[in-house]
Amino acid sequence: MALTVVGSIAFDSVRTPFGERDRMLGGSAVHFSLAASFFTTVRAVGPVGGDFGEDEFAVLRARGVETDDIEQVEGGETFFWRAHYGHDLNVAHTDDTQLNVFGEFEPKLSPASRHTEVLFLGNIQPELQRRVRAQCDAHLVALDSMNLWIETTRQALLAAVGEVDCLMLNDAELRMLTEEANLARAARAVMDMGPSIVVAKRGEYGAALFTGEGFFAIPGYLLEDVRDPTGAGDSFAGGFLGYLDGVGAEVAGASDAELRRAMAYGSVLASFNVEGFGTERVQTLTRDEIEARLRDFKRLTHFEEQPVPDSPSR
Amino acid sequence: MALTVVGSIAFDSVRTPFGERDRMLGGSAVHFSLAASFFTTVRAVGPVGGDFGEDEFAVLRARGVETDDIEQVEGGETFFWRAHYGHDLNVAHTDDTQLNVFGEFEPKLSPASRHTEVLFLGNIQPELQRRVRAQCDAHLVALDSMNLWIETTRQALLAAVGEVDCLMLNDAELRMLTEEANLARAARAVMDMGPSIVVAKRGEYGAALFTGEGFFAIPGYLLEDVRDPTGAGDSFAGGFLGYLDGVGAEVAGASDAELRRAMAYGSVLASFNVEGFGTERVQTLTRDEIEARLRDFKRLTHFEEQPVPDSPSR
Repeated sequence: MALTVVGSIAFDSVRTPFGERDRMLGGSAVHFSLAASFFTTVRAVGPVGGDFGEDEFAVLRARGVETDDIEQVEGGETFFWRAHYGHDLNVAHTDDTQLNVFGEFEPKLSPASRHTEVLFLGNIQPELQRRVRAQCDAHLVALDSMNLWIETTRQALLAAVGEVDCLMLNDAELRMLTEEANLARAARAVMDMGPSIVVAKRGEYGAALFTGEGFFAIPGYLLEDVRDPTGAGDSFAGGFLGYLDGVGAEVAGASDAELRRAMAYGSVLASFNVEGFGTERVQTLTRDEIEARLRDFKRLTHFEEQPVPDSPSR
Repeated sequence: MALTVVGSIAFDSVRTPFGERDRMLGGSAVHFSLAASFFTTVRAVGPVGGDFGEDEFAVLRARGVETDDIEQVEGGETFFWRAHYGHDLNVAHTDDTQLNVFGEFEPKLSPASRHTEVLFLGNIQPELQRRVRAQCDAHLVALDSMNLWIETTRQALLAAVGEVDCLMLNDAELRMLTEEANLARAARAVMDMGPSIVVAKRGEYGAALFTGEGFFAIPGYLLEDVRDPTGAGDSFAGGFLGYLDGVGAEVAGASDAELRRAMAYGSVLASFNVEGFGTERVQTLTRDEIEARLRDFKRLTHFEEQPVPDSPSR
């Protein structure tokens, strides 16, 4: 089993009420790769500049991520993002975005990356996502996007959505994309476009899964110490798709139980992501810690029904 | 087992994108009473005007709600609220509030209401909540409030919170009351004030429960047809406390399993509430429908962990 991800590979400068970091390793492909690496072999695709050094590559390789398809543009500069968060950690305020080498990026997948079982199209321009998708024969293709592309390149995004099996968006973006105020109806509208799986990410409130069979909802793992939410959505996607690929689930064959467990693993990986700045926490994470939190998560979200005695008045 | 509730008994005029109703039966004590009536005997306390007629009393009595302590003020007018909702059903826009008989209300509990096991102080002025609380020897007292009282009568509200066992607030209001951005820390700050149980209501996203033992989170029951969210929080509280009283749970003795089931019943009652305008849906509700949705809710929110095969890369 192997999984290919295309997305941003970045330097992020982030300030939250709990601290700040300058030019730390980030980007959707990075957060996704590290999370998925606990479950399967991950091949990362994307461009970096000459300023992307051995230290950055080492973080990915330490988790076994295949970096052959990370294209280093000599003389170019790596994608850069600067943002801050106020007390509402659900909202990132972007202060600066420099596309740099991403502005000229033309994805070229190696044979190994073309033939993985799962492909994740991280949040980049929809036309780039489509060109990657056309090169890859994965049996499960998932796509993330954002309000920017819904507003500025809507037609290209709709075409990209029509070519994938699974759409993963924030709930507000799902409503925006489909112009449906109700989340369940929005998910159904997406399924009418092609995808058979829709995941609505709901920030600290968790996530919801929609398939032809029905829906499944999971709350967020409650934490007392959230330091930096950057990358939480990509870590969720990495845990979700990494788990599915690791157990060899096929898109048509993924059982309901497998998809639910994938949602739980996604939530667990996202919860570790936000405990530290950037990739700090996930870099030191172990599979045992993941399994322990999964058990804890189940304990914190499950209830048992039991016959209730008849009430005196009824 | 019996339960006393004090709160508003109202006529509500509500418009949502899905329709509108003029002067329908509403108010926190009404929504709460109907929801709790499926589990235990409920005694409603509050004032109404001469305009409150047999039709309105009949709705409560049809569900077995004891109305002896509903004080009818001849010549007075019943509390009135007019509001509308846009596509974001999480936000009510109040257009008019007329306190009417509530402006002069001096609660007087009958002996039967003083001696119930559970007391719910619905969202009214904190000083009124305190005067009711002082008259009642319930072993489990819960309180709801709102941003208005946090802003305008903060000291009285803090005193009221210090006198109850359970605080039930929206998550934003919990953060506002405690000035803590993190929900888990906000809940702990409330427990330092006295209550041993804190319930954070999160609208369509569900609810979270905090006790000395830890926390529990439950997503909202996803619906394709939400018509009017008015009263959902009170129906949640009615299902939650009604269930606890129905099984004879004591505040110190309520088991973790009982509290979780109470959260699930609260969510189920809230989900029925929002399917119709005002009390329309709950008026026709049956216990069998509640149990069927509880089973469905469990199915839609539970996952099973299972050992995962070692990934090839780790």
